[in-house]
Amino acid sequence: MLEHFKISDDEAIRVPIDSLRTTTEELFLKCGVSEEDSKLGADVLMFADSRGIDTHGVSNALRGYVSDYLSGACNPRPVNSIIRSSQSTALVDGDNGLGLMTAPYGMKIAIEKAKKTGVGIVSIRNSNHLGAAGYHAMMAIEHDMIGWCMTGGGKAMVPTFGAEPQLGTNPIAFAAPANIEAPFMFDAAMTAIAGNKIGLANRLGKPMEPGWIANEDGSPNMDGGSTHDFIINSIRTQLPLGSTRELGSHKGYSLGVMVDILCGQLSFAPGFESLDQNRRAHFVAAYDISAFGSVNDFKNNMDGMLKGLRETKPMPGKDRVMYAGLPEVETLKERTEKGVPLHPEVIDWFKDICAELQIQYELS
Amino acid sequence: MLEHFKISDDEAIRVPIDSLRTTTEELFLKCGVSEEDSKLGADVLMFADSRGIDTHGVSNALRGYVSDYLSGACNPRPVNSIIRSSQSTALVDGDNGLGLMTAPYGMKIAIEKAKKTGVGIVSIRNSNHLGAAGYHAMMAIEHDMIGWCMTGGGKAMVPTFGAEPQLGTNPIAFAAPANIEAPFMFDAAMTAIAGNKIGLANRLGKPMEPGWIANEDGSPNMDGGSTHDFIINSIRTQLPLGSTRELGSHKGYSLGVMVDILCGQLSFAPGFESLDQNRRAHFVAAYDISAFGSVNDFKNNMDGMLKGLRETKPMPGKDRVMYAGLPEVETLKERTEKGVPLHPEVIDWFKDICAELQIQYELS
Repeated sequence: MLEHFKISDDEAIRVPIDSLRTTTEELFLKCGVSEEDSKLGADVLMFADSRGIDTHGVSNALRGYVSDYLSGACNPRPVNSIIRSSQSTALVDGDNGLGLMTAPYGMKIAIEKAKKTGVGIVSIRNSNHLGAAGYHAMMAIEHDMIGWCMTGGGKAMVPTFGAEPQLGTNPIAFAAPANIEAPFMFDAAMTAIAGNKIGLANRLGKPMEPGWIANEDGSPNMDGGSTHDFIINSIRTQLPLGSTRELGSHKGYSLGVMVDILCGQLSFAPGFESLDQNRRAHFVAAYDISAFGSVNDFKNNMDGMLKGLRETKPMPGKDRVMYAGLPEVETLKERTEKGVPLHPEVIDWFKDICAELQIQYELS
Repeated sequence: MLEHFKISDDEAIRVPIDSLRTTTEELFLKCGVSEEDSKLGADVLMFADSRGIDTHGVSNALRGYVSDYLSGACNPRPVNSIIRSSQSTALVDGDNGLGLMTAPYGMKIAIEKAKKTGVGIVSIRNSNHLGAAGYHAMMAIEHDMIGWCMTGGGKAMVPTFGAEPQLGTNPIAFAAPANIEAPFMFDAAMTAIAGNKIGLANRLGKPMEPGWIANEDGSPNMDGGSTHDFIINSIRTQLPLGSTRELGSHKGYSLGVMVDILCGQLSFAPGFESLDQNRRAHFVAAYDISAFGSVNDFKNNMDGMLKGLRETKPMPGKDRVMYAGLPEVETLKERTEKGVPLHPEVIDWFKDICAELQIQYELS
């Protein structure tokens, strides 16, 4: 994570992962979510919080989920259904449930299909926010498969040369296993930064960097310094990955369109044909490595590649080169030992919501 | 295309597509390529030249192909083989043929599998440069499918914080059909700019823009203005899409690793486990839209989305917003009428190589 987004040690209150998990499960239960789904939802959030993916952990995401359940915007007891299925594909309807649980439902189907035919791809409509997409992609590697997860919809990204947002941040996650090395796990928005990073920056009182957001007229803000009063889930104007046409923003923009197509168009989700603000859909896929050759050879080769990347000579001023998935595993070790650092404002929210929902507060 | 890379009308010599196609076919034939493969190879090049994808047309690519055939580096009469196959997957060995012809071989397999199971994915090893990856992705849309094509290997991209190149430019192509609108066709390197754009810039005497290349020590060159004497296929030091860590270069870098995994690791191609300079492999996939629902509804919905993107209010100083695939279709119309603009230096090369291989020169 950029230093920019790190909560300072002075401010942070460390909370053990187990207590955070228990409290999160209890919150879901109080929202009317089933026991199984509460455990799963908490697991997706703990995946993020324990690995330093703070944009998608309890701080940024959980209060929105709770509020959507309590307001009735999100269905706590969805009945997922398979609308259409072929040997290697499925279209799933999530019954307006939370994506944290819908995406694993879809990924399990993809994995089962991949066991039989080598590949499973599932497009999912009528769902909500899915948390850290990397969680769902990583489900595949437990089965010696390569995993994909994407989520599309909403309005945050300004198309290259556009003056108004038309696409979501539309993240792509991709995971592949290794033997000794930390597995490769990529999970990133196709905007220059993740949407939730704006919430995180607001909480930490940090300004925007150049290239992250658009000015009011849509032109790329390359000066930085602004403290946009963006509100999560409201209309934002973020720049695509690449920031300007010269730096390649048409690539981030187009990858965002690709995500909308695989999630929304392929699942025939409402609103994708009109770029509606409220559209939301997902896509997951699993590719079975054993359909191509020896799983052990694949993982050994991955080790060689990842080690090679890790041992790349660093540029001046940097200690080392990383690969996606490596810092997360290092943070997991540190936070398992020391707990998850939460901002006092997040602790206050937990205290308030626990009181409101009559849960014993036991975090700190 | 950026104005930066446009050949000026004063300099350009316009050549009809048909003559360019015939001469290209004859060059392939003289290199020992079969009649069928010569036609296919020329078709892939004409796809690029007729659509303004000048980085992957005859100017930049053809002389390398001819030289590799004549030196024996590339096999003009490869026998493609399926090393391993499952219901929805295949691993293809390209017998050191040219990727222009190997990738379509793989994509045909992917399409046939997708007709039966909904999906086909094919990883291809032992091949060479595949031209414009968009050509191969677009093969799928003729069958009402979504198409993917990637190609990985070589050393051009500096990992985020790295001082030396470890990955290729590793392009991703993705195509999806529409009814009335030009089909969506994305095809772009996961570096800030395509490798061949450096060759094109050299020919046009244009300097690098900020954020495109790394300095000698690996640090991002954010000043621009340098006229790197990069030579195509030699070690280059290009920045990932995103250019700097702050702007998101870890995303371009990681997407590049993803491409290496799907192309090289999944095909067990030699050299990918050691990030060898000379590794090269491809990946193609086809997803059958009819497995998910009505093809006509899908295309109508795509029309709605693409029209919506096209009609996005533009930022000041810009006439309109585009989507990937739209400028290519517009250029196709213009060049079909007026011919392909070639630089005099390219015309000279054609004259020389036609004389050398005893082909009647008939371009201009």
